[in-house]
Amino acid sequence: MNPQVQAFTTPERLLLGPGPSPVAPSVLRALAQPTIGHLDPLLLQVQDEISALLRSVYGSESPWTIAFSGTGSSGMEGALVNLIEPGDVALVAVGGFFGARMVDVAQRAGARVIAVEHEWGRQADLAKLRKAAAAERVRFVCAVQAETSTGVRQDLAPLSQLARELDAFFVVDAVTSLGCMAVDCDAQGIDAAYSCSQKGLSCVPGLAPVTFSPRAQARIASRTRPVQSFYLDMNLLMRFWGGERGYHHTISSNLLVALHEALRLVHLEGLEARFERHARIGRSLRAGVRAMGLELFVPDEDALSQVTAIRIPAGVDDLRVRKRLLAEYGIEISGGLGAQKGRLWRVGMMGSGASLRNVVLVLDALAASLRAEGEPPLDSGVEAAQGAFAAGTS
Amino acid sequence: MNPQVQAFTTPERLLLGPGPSPVAPSVLRALAQPTIGHLDPLLLQVQDEISALLRSVYGSESPWTIAFSGTGSSGMEGALVNLIEPGDVALVAVGGFFGARMVDVAQRAGARVIAVEHEWGRQADLAKLRKAAAAERVRFVCAVQAETSTGVRQDLAPLSQLARELDAFFVVDAVTSLGCMAVDCDAQGIDAAYSCSQKGLSCVPGLAPVTFSPRAQARIASRTRPVQSFYLDMNLLMRFWGGERGYHHTISSNLLVALHEALRLVHLEGLEARFERHARIGRSLRAGVRAMGLELFVPDEDALSQVTAIRIPAGVDDLRVRKRLLAEYGIEISGGLGAQKGRLWRVGMMGSGASLRNVVLVLDALAASLRAEGEPPLDSGVEAAQGAFAAGTS
Repeated sequence: MNPQVQAFTTPERLLLGPGPSPVAPSVLRALAQPTIGHLDPLLLQVQDEISALLRSVYGSESPWTIAFSGTGSSGMEGALVNLIEPGDVALVAVGGFFGARMVDVAQRAGARVIAVEHEWGRQADLAKLRKAAAAERVRFVCAVQAETSTGVRQDLAPLSQLARELDAFFVVDAVTSLGCMAVDCDAQGIDAAYSCSQKGLSCVPGLAPVTFSPRAQARIASRTRPVQSFYLDMNLLMRFWGGERGYHHTISSNLLVALHEALRLVHLEGLEARFERHARIGRSLRAGVRAMGLELFVPDEDALSQVTAIRIPAGVDDLRVRKRLLAEYGIEISGGLGAQKGRLWRVGMMGSGASLRNVVLVLDALAASLRAEGEPPLDSGVEAAQGAFAAGTS
Repeated sequence: MNPQVQAFTTPERLLLGPGPSPVAPSVLRALAQPTIGHLDPLLLQVQDEISALLRSVYGSESPWTIAFSGTGSSGMEGALVNLIEPGDVALVAVGGFFGARMVDVAQRAGARVIAVEHEWGRQADLAKLRKAAAAERVRFVCAVQAETSTGVRQDLAPLSQLARELDAFFVVDAVTSLGCMAVDCDAQGIDAAYSCSQKGLSCVPGLAPVTFSPRAQARIASRTRPVQSFYLDMNLLMRFWGGERGYHHTISSNLLVALHEALRLVHLEGLEARFERHARIGRSLRAGVRAMGLELFVPDEDALSQVTAIRIPAGVDDLRVRKRLLAEYGIEISGGLGAQKGRLWRVGMMGSGASLRNVVLVLDALAASLRAEGEPPLDSGVEAAQGAFAAGTS
């Protein structure tokens, strides 16, 4: 072991990838408040308020609305392992990396999975899903509302309708949607949704907000065998998060207090205003990217506002451009996942990061980096972005 | 939703329960540094240093030494689900709440568990374990090195010997031992150990340091079926923690940077000095408790230094005393778990909380609280504690 370990100083990155998103100073201050015990009576109050604030953001009235002590990926795992019993059939709409991950996680939970593959970059095809479900006893319809890997928005209404037709539980990945757009759990008939503390909520990573409908709760409470994960078992977690305060795990008061502050900021802004801000900033960024002469991966009608995927021009080196953005501008954007590695850039405008200032910054920085690579863009895109922003909220 | 959500201000508790322990100011400052991305090149350096520092604290040379993105309970789950395949026989020494939890978690992973129950408050009985293992193909010997629920220290050497005799993997719960006392993974032939970021390391809760031996690594890499947890799958996690940097989950840079700082403080103090400090402070507290006329739950030869269980005198109300300590002194201690609820107090002197100042404070506060309840102690215990401390390190 090196005798001298230096303290680590984090540089100030501008986080414009699809997560983590920029964290507000008050959230970092909340995070660094003194640690209190997991059974401290005051922490119960924080948890109760977090649950109420999460219900509001999720559009759910279910008391089974809490945060797992893990990242968004633990949210996916927890949603699926609580609901699935071995042999259950799960229909999963796959159109990107995270849809594919749902397949993997559901299979590890013992499900027989019908994975309905779609071209990356488009919404799910209802007819295709319906056909795949025919003559099967489908227990779960699973979909990703905001596919982080592609920037595709999935309309929930048709899938919700399909779940009803099949008398199946509707499970929604809201990792990149929560806090950026409406999830509307109760209105959409969602039985389980999960997300992360970062991205749309702009907290630090480390917690996974989840919500389960009363119907899901009843199923979980009457399982024939225990949830395979003790750590994520909702039956046990609700004994801790509920009034009973039964010890389950040493939840991090620091993360909870930070999430509480992040949710307070969401609440202060107001959900409608926040969703509209994301929509407006997303339109602005897309207008700028187009004016640069770059190609967007997702057609407007399917595009998310909070994550924009840009095709990397032929001949341009993905990593070199991203390293330049990081080194010269301190800006982080992301590359593609899976088959889109090296072919896409993904720019996130999420939570407190979704601002005109950041749109302008990332466009100017990207234009300069492309010029440095000998790929002059048509335009910096900034004026087009400003114009789209000024065109307002309609 | 209440229109006015107030920001939450955490009171400054003196955390003298068996976890979380007091967090050093520099660790809280590290925690609140700006968030950086999970694939940021600088984070890899932090992770590499964390792995090296953890190897040192664990006494392991294995590169499979990382932190799960969850609390200590996720460490237990991750250690077991990575190793166990359905039908495997696991022998678990149970002498407290966390031994019993290992049984539950191993069963959920599909193991057939031989739970060898012991009276709470004593070490495991090797002859009893050996007898229970006879004529069984035992794959795992599992034990808790420091039983948080009772304050019992488990000697690892005899159990390690048993594991070797049985040609079984040796799995050790080091949740309350890591950073307080030697775990010595390589010397003790431990194949998997897990802990938490809080307690002995005095970081905030939220990460679970784990280590797997090369033999365990080989088994995990050649499993016949995938690890049931995607989130805790070491095969995938090592692609992320290793040089490959394959995306797995959005690890929290804030928690990592805080853990890095906490481990740096451990390293600065030195392991031997740290372990000796815990031993000395533990002896001091026990001497004080005895001088008060209170009864210790665990005989000296089996007692931990970092967690001391005290029998609640007959007629004294557990909760009233603990509420008084919290309200009047801002001191948190804990009650008993399971059958010992209402019968034990548990006082932790862990990590940066293990100090003579805290021994004196908790003794004085406890003595005053007992007097207020009409149960005058023989003595405050402070002078006896000071005397034991002065008697030094032998």
